Amino acid sequence: MPTKLPNERDLEPAGGMQLDPSGDGIELDESRRLIASSKVEGTAVFDPKGEQLGTVMNFMVDKVTGQVAYVVMAFGGFLGLGESHHPLPWRALRYDVQLGGYVVDIDRDRLVASPHHRAEEDAFADAGYGKAVDAYYRW
Amino acid sequence: MPTKLPNERDLEPAGGMQLDPSGDGIELDESRRLIASSKVEGTAVFDPKGEQLGTVMNFMVDKVTGQVAYVVMAFGGFLGLGESHHPLPWRALRYDVQLGGYVVDIDRDRLVASPHHRAEEDAFADAGYGKAVDAYYRW
Repeated sequence: MPTKLPNERDLEPAGGMQLDPSGDGIELDESRRLIASSKVEGTAVFDPKGEQLGTVMNFMVDKVTGQVAYVVMAFGGFLGLGESHHPLPWRALRYDVQLGGYVVDIDRDRLVASPHHRAEEDAFADAGYGKAVDAYYRW
Repeated sequence: MPTKLPNERDLEPAGGMQLDPSGDGIELDESRRLIASSKVEGTAVFDPKGEQLGTVMNFMVDKVTGQVAYVVMAFGGFLGLGESHHPLPWRALRYDVQLGGYVVDIDRDRLVASPHHRAEEDAFADAGYGKAVDAYYRW
């Protein structure tokens, strides 16, 4: 069971992820409405201080509706060894032109404590995993 | 301008794409609700007779909502040369376990006549392109 349940502190509103207030998600700099999945995958993810947290691995998509449920970010490890995969809400990512990657309003400590799984784990086979992610980010 | 506008014949209801009547889209064989984008990308796409039409390249995702607007399928060409990219509605794809790929209710002629673009073209920069795709598949 890969789920790591959030602790009390993590569920406090003050610790909640800041979603983009404008309602715009990924790549605010672009006026265009659509973006290719392949353009997002492999892109670096930074914390608000500009420190790189990880890299976008892929998306988890709802088969029925086609809605992107989570963006999965790879974090830590070396050459793929020991890295953990952290699902994030789609709207948490906002593109920063200067950094050349996405910025999320979440620091390393909060990320480490978030629900995550190993690359080889089929974490979403357990419906409770997605629910734990939603609860963690109050989504 | 990469858009190819549909002709009259293509807009006839009888020529419309059959969406999955159950409302389930990709991978009906799986009871699980989510699928990884990386699992869909690179997967073969077949017509109803089992003839391969192409391969899923990537998705076009709405930046604001995270909704997958189109699945882009590569068609024709050889080793990437001369191939064309055809956006399809997400729900048009249904997974076939025996074929090991997706099946769309569209034959080769209808696909050839559909709106498409070259790999190097930034077709979705033109909002009219998506509209032409929607109109073609009556989506």
